[in-house]
Amino acid sequence: MTIDLRSDTVTKPTEAMIRAMAEAEVGDDVYGEDPTVNRLESIAAERLGKEAAMFVTSGTQGNQVAVLTHCVSGDEVIMEANSHIFYYEGGAVAALAGVQTRTLAGVRGALQAADVARAIRGADIHFPRTRLVCMENTHNRAGGAVVAPEQMEAVYETAKRHGAAVHLDGARLFNAAVALGRDVTEFTRHTDSVTVCLSKGLSAPVGSILAGDRAFIEEARWWRKKLGGGLRQAGYLAAPGILALTEMTERLQEDHARARMLADGLRKLGLHVEPVETNIVLVRTESAGLTAEQFLARLAERGVRAVDFDEYVVRFTTHRHIGDQDILKTLEIIESVLTA
Amino acid sequence: MTIDLRSDTVTKPTEAMIRAMAEAEVGDDVYGEDPTVNRLESIAAERLGKEAAMFVTSGTQGNQVAVLTHCVSGDEVIMEANSHIFYYEGGAVAALAGVQTRTLAGVRGALQAADVARAIRGADIHFPRTRLVCMENTHNRAGGAVVAPEQMEAVYETAKRHGAAVHLDGARLFNAAVALGRDVTEFTRHTDSVTVCLSKGLSAPVGSILAGDRAFIEEARWWRKKLGGGLRQAGYLAAPGILALTEMTERLQEDHARARMLADGLRKLGLHVEPVETNIVLVRTESAGLTAEQFLARLAERGVRAVDFDEYVVRFTTHRHIGDQDILKTLEIIESVLTA
Amino acid sequence: MTIDLRSDTVTKPTEAMIRAMAEAEVGDDVYGEDPTVNRLESIAAERLGKEAAMFVTSGTQGNQVAVLTHCVSGDEVIMEANSHIFYYEGGAVAALAGVQTRTLAGVRGALQAADVARAIRGADIHFPRTRLVCMENTHNRAGGAVVAPEQMEAVYETAKRHGAAVHLDGARLFNAAVALGRDVTEFTRHTDSVTVCLSKGLSAPVGSILAGDRAFIEEARWWRKKLGGGLRQAGYLAAPGILALTEMTERLQEDHARARMLADGLRKLGLHVEPVETNIVLVRTESAGLTAEQFLARLAERGVRAVDFDEYVVRFTTHRHIGDQDILKTLEIIESVLTA
Amino acid sequence: MTIDLRSDTVTKPTEAMIRAMAEAEVGDDVYGEDPTVNRLESIAAERLGKEAAMFVTSGTQGNQVAVLTHCVSGDEVIMEANSHIFYYEGGAVAALAGVQTRTLAGVRGALQAADVARAIRGADIHFPRTRLVCMENTHNRAGGAVVAPEQMEAVYETAKRHGAAVHLDGARLFNAAVALGRDVTEFTRHTDSVTVCLSKGLSAPVGSILAGDRAFIEEARWWRKKLGGGLRQAGYLAAPGILALTEMTERLQEDHARARMLADGLRKLGLHVEPVETNIVLVRTESAGLTAEQFLARLAERGVRAVDFDEYVVRFTTHRHIGDQDILKTLEIIESVLTA
Repeated sequence: MTIDLRSDTVTKPTEAMIRAMAEAEVGDDVYGEDPTVNRLESIAAERLGKEAAMFVTSGTQGNQVAVLTHCVSGDEVIMEANSHIFYYEGGAVAALAGVQTRTLAGVRGALQAADVARAIRGADIHFPRTRLVCMENTHNRAGGAVVAPEQMEAVYETAKRHGAAVHLDGARLFNAAVALGRDVTEFTRHTDSVTVCLSKGLSAPVGSILAGDRAFIEEARWWRKKLGGGLRQAGYLAAPGILALTEMTERLQEDHARARMLADGLRKLGLHVEPVETNIVLVRTESAGLTAEQFLARLAERGVRAVDFDEYVVRFTTHRHIGDQDILKTLEIIESVLTA
Repeated sequence: MTIDLRSDTVTKPTEAMIRAMAEAEVGDDVYGEDPTVNRLESIAAERLGKEAAMFVTSGTQGNQVAVLTHCVSGDEVIMEANSHIFYYEGGAVAALAGVQTRTLAGVRGALQAADVARAIRGADIHFPRTRLVCMENTHNRAGGAVVAPEQMEAVYETAKRHGAAVHLDGARLFNAAVALGRDVTEFTRHTDSVTVCLSKGLSAPVGSILAGDRAFIEEARWWRKKLGGGLRQAGYLAAPGILALTEMTERLQEDHARARMLADGLRKLGLHVEPVETNIVLVRTESAGLTAEQFLARLAERGVRAVDFDEYVVRFTTHRHIGDQDILKTLEIIESVLTA
Repeated sequence: MTIDLRSDTVTKPTEAMIRAMAEAEVGDDVYGEDPTVNRLESIAAERLGKEAAMFVTSGTQGNQVAVLTHCVSGDEVIMEANSHIFYYEGGAVAALAGVQTRTLAGVRGALQAADVARAIRGADIHFPRTRLVCMENTHNRAGGAVVAPEQMEAVYETAKRHGAAVHLDGARLFNAAVALGRDVTEFTRHTDSVTVCLSKGLSAPVGSILAGDRAFIEEARWWRKKLGGGLRQAGYLAAPGILALTEMTERLQEDHARARMLADGLRKLGLHVEPVETNIVLVRTESAGLTAEQFLARLAERGVRAVDFDEYVVRFTTHRHIGDQDILKTLEIIESVLTA
Repeated sequence: MTIDLRSDTVTKPTEAMIRAMAEAEVGDDVYGEDPTVNRLESIAAERLGKEAAMFVTSGTQGNQVAVLTHCVSGDEVIMEANSHIFYYEGGAVAALAGVQTRTLAGVRGALQAADVARAIRGADIHFPRTRLVCMENTHNRAGGAVVAPEQMEAVYETAKRHGAAVHLDGARLFNAAVALGRDVTEFTRHTDSVTVCLSKGLSAPVGSILAGDRAFIEEARWWRKKLGGGLRQAGYLAAPGILALTEMTERLQEDHARARMLADGLRKLGLHVEPVETNIVLVRTESAGLTAEQFLARLAERGVRAVDFDEYVVRFTTHRHIGDQDILKTLEIIESVLTA
């Protein structure tokens, strides 16, 4: 049996989700007639404190539609240098929306308001227009780091002062909310639009939510259609999505606890571990005399899977299918690798 | 009870499909680990006579990914002037792929090889490069018209002679195959890539297939990811898709029979009806002294729904939820409208 | 000595133009400090009846900047099926601006208002938004055909009624004005923006004008900069451009007279010639038993050059370097080809 | 009389250049028939050690055409975070070419090969493809810093090892060559393509050169045409361009000497001056208790013009119209500002 710590995206839906799927009332969502999708969108909007919400097939699609809706070709978008939208979305913001990425190094994933202020362009025909600032929370490549609402507020105020919009890639926003014990709306109020994933730790099989004000979501539907994200009987995906939003967010603290448990164990084994705030654990492999790739290969032989984040950095991600025993077993296996 | 003849996209999955969904074995398809998706893709490739296939969330996504994969920005794509990819995809081929649309008027939706030959550009820096020719079969706006394999072959040979690729929007390709009693591969062999829909008459809830040779599909996966079409546990959609491909194609002849039945009835009522080859019926409303919009409004009051295609053209589409009684009832209602 | 009837673009500047160039007062136009450019732009705006004007390096650049300024990616632009912007600009409107081209067959190059009305899209997420209608006057591929101000007005009114802007590719607009004996502003008042060429019949070496209202031209400067059209001491090109606008427009009637002379002669030789309204003559070569290419090759051997427009269509263009003797000589040579 | 130290772009052509312009033999360059353009392109190719070269209207156009020619939409391009192509070209690489900018902080403008190696993407559908690395030499925002051929070689080798192309924005490459006393080909051999400006210190009124191998330049002509950079009698611009390349490069050392003279004087006045390697002098204004904007305003009142580069950084640029007396006068005026 493999212990799969590669990502929380590997989570399969709960029994209740599968039941909800099988019993979902559906319709043609391109005509706006899928009652389950409509219900999901209304629940999501309310939960995220926005006027409106739209189901999309992935976090990437949510982010891309957001950029396409906020911006026009020739604009510039400020984002953290290791953000998902810059790092993992295939350069799509340039390819699809024609916007230039202005990347800033964050502090544990958090953009600094002063840096944002400096990066916003003045009016000069040599410059693109700074139309949008993107944040990410929790920040994946910063190790699941949480950006506090107050940090978001500072960036938001800066952006708005200069007429730029703010989008939040909140693929794991509920992890941030749970970690700080604050409501998601404390984060989302400092954004114009937000993407959250229903899969990952929340365990729905497919899909994400893009939320914003009514006019924004209205316009976003046009871009989702162009990307081929207009679905027919999407209620089968929306039904487990409703459970993800309404039943699954609190359980994320279990993933966080196990991530801390893993981190503590790894530190005891003498490895350098980045601070752990949510369900992601970044470990440096230099002290083991191994590259990330070598380290992963030895783990894989012994039944543990994770991913590399850099030449000497490995990421472990906890999720619903990982129990305490899996953490203990993982630590045992890593110990055996280190002492081999 | 409404008789919904707006589109075959309103079809809901069969009981067997819902069961297959609930019992699907799934995995993370971004990692290529969803066994049901993999099975669907392999069945689809074989069925379509192509090396490889990929699940996409809609016909639009399949077409867009095809264009993005075949072309680069600055190319020109030849397509029929009323084709879905030109008419109904939000101008996405220009917005996403940066290609110019060269539209030709077809004969009942079929591009004529001689016209294609004339439209292909020579090598001159004033011109875009003609990289791709798109066909559509059956052709929706031409009233579900079938393009015979021999017509496709003529276009294909012309395109290849000039170094252009050929893509087929086969959203309703199985309707064409069933109508002519020929295998789908007789059509697809005259294409480099093809999109077919699993929803519509085949009744799967969501999704389409893009098929082509191995290298093409490999590259297409990059573009699908950028569009946000990389899904996680997509097996829940793939499972009914497998049944769509393996169990549902023959039933399309029932839809065709009912479309003919409807057309015959409409003609008896004195309406001008376009030739009916598959499951789509186009009716002109001038003789009723009504615009399409007015005609539809009166039908809707009486419980029948259809869509307008032009100022004086109404489209009816038959599908799995339309039985003989529905056709008779529809004719009755239309008669009452005409005599009102 | 070759008689070069390929295009009016081969015209070289007058002595006065070269002198004006050599004596031009210049500055850095990126800083807006070139006095000669500023003077040209102000003269051009006034001449064209627009608030503002901008120098661009070619008609293509003027058209492309116009589309980029009027539209956003995902829009649709209506244009004549044989217009320069569609046919000869390398598919740039799709490649650069991401807009879909909706081509309509004109009547001798003139879009018909009723066709435009039908082609304008309604608000539906399946559709691109119709943002712009482009006209061309005189229309090159329609044989230098003139579009009357009244025809332009009908299209303009239609476009405005539906919220679309109107751009005029007036590369040879002064030919139209001279042909009808009407002021250019009678044409340009039925447009939001207009491109006119300073080269071609007007004989400046390089450059065109894009004109429109102040806000439009302000924005257009951003796009011109992105295309690399922001020049430094551009006054050297603007100086002959001023003479082109102020001294050269009336002389176009000489080109028109010689085009008619050529057409009459060709007809006497038994060739089918399209109606000639300005300085372009389209001749069909079928009756000579030659393709356009073969016909051109035989002319070239005998010292006459022209271009092919279609398999059996040759274009002759008169201009400042073509005198009556050149026309007579050309007719002689063609006669010898026909009787060979 | 103003002393204009804003930019070397304000230089006007020499008498010899104006004469060359007036006497230039020209033709229609869209047909490839302008003999002066052809001569310029052939001289430039040889001078830059490349197979072929093409005249473009600006450095921006040269850079944009290079990116469009090397890349396809969805690619990633590595560039220095303060490079012209990223900072001053209006986000055009994203808007026109659809490529994502991966910016790295250089050392005095020089990309570090190790950083480039780390930034190049592996093959993964989450990633764009790294298709191109851009360098800039001399580097404007790094204060006219020279990148040594050996530094360029290291980056070039790294790029090639990973299959990426290398473009050099050599707007002021001759300044670098003169500063190090090395031939330009010692720099250009470590690139696949290169842009150099004929204006700036070399004093031609308008234009730049893009050079590369034959196939690259062939393809580049297609993109230049789409941008509207296909000119007619461009020989009038090419003629002074020839003198720029053949007569003006050595004179750049005079500009460098005066820049050093200015820097020395500024340091004596107690200002912090960045190292000066060519014709650009960056001065920090904090010690004067003034922002760059305030400092510039006071200089302007007294007849000296420069530009701001950052909140507290002012750039002075020496060029052909600046003599020793201008430097002395400038220092006097700055002293008066500091002591005011």
